Amino acid sequence: MDLERDALGIEDFKYDSAGLIPAVIQQFDSREVLMVAYMNSESLAKTLETGKTWFWSRSRSKYWMKGESSGHTQDVKEILYDCDADTLLVLVDQTGVACHTQARTCFYRRLYPSADAGTIENDEGDIPLS
Amino acid sequence: MDLERDALGIEDFKYDSAGLIPAVIQQFDSREVLMVAYMNSESLAKTLETGKTWFWSRSRSKYWMKGESSGHTQDVKEILYDCDADTLLVLVDQTGVACHTQARTCFYRRLYPSADAGTIENDEGDIPLS
Repeated sequence: MDLERDALGIEDFKYDSAGLIPAVIQQFDSREVLMVAYMNSESLAKTLETGKTWFWSRSRSKYWMKGESSGHTQDVKEILYDCDADTLLVLVDQTGVACHTQARTCFYRRLYPSADAGTIENDEGDIPLS
Repeated sequence: MDLERDALGIEDFKYDSAGLIPAVIQQFDSREVLMVAYMNSESLAKTLETGKTWFWSRSRSKYWMKGESSGHTQDVKEILYDCDADTLLVLVDQTGVACHTQARTCFYRRLYPSADAGTIENDEGDIPLS
């Protein structure tokens, strides 16, 4: 296949009926998955323009730059998209912590194996399960 | 917080209006993100029962076990959930390849930096961008 012909742009992705596409945010070097949030074409354009992650808040109906109040911004290293062009994978360098709970990653609780082990080990050390 | 009181079960997650929750599938050791698919409470229960990933296909309106036709199954190692309980992170050991295109991961195309670099390096070696 021809690379140029195959290459997709912002308007080519499969946004859902609300105009959104999920973005998996991953720390570029440790490959830790930090969070999942939603972009629309405008927030994706802002992300590309600024090199920081911008999302659309479904609950607040507004654009937000990750870290705009906390300072915990995400510098964008790479943006990949999947085979059916309906999900983004954004590799970032996370300043501070990704989660509003002050955990390094939003994925700090475990369903399986059952939670009685108490903590999850990650690159930043043990994170309490709650 | 009390671990037992905080621990969530299958019915406690925030499914969307169609009863679905996105599941990010990550190779447990390399931490490569392989794909994103959707579960409902029933497919999550099947996943926990069988130790293999089960999803709900939005396009075909049916349950499917990853690899049921290709043999490229995913052995579940760990299931995490995020701070607002509306996304799952499933760590698996992927047999063969995750993508129907035969790429190791569904995320084999790049939006940024621009695609003229031609290939993306990953653990399995270079994957053509198309």
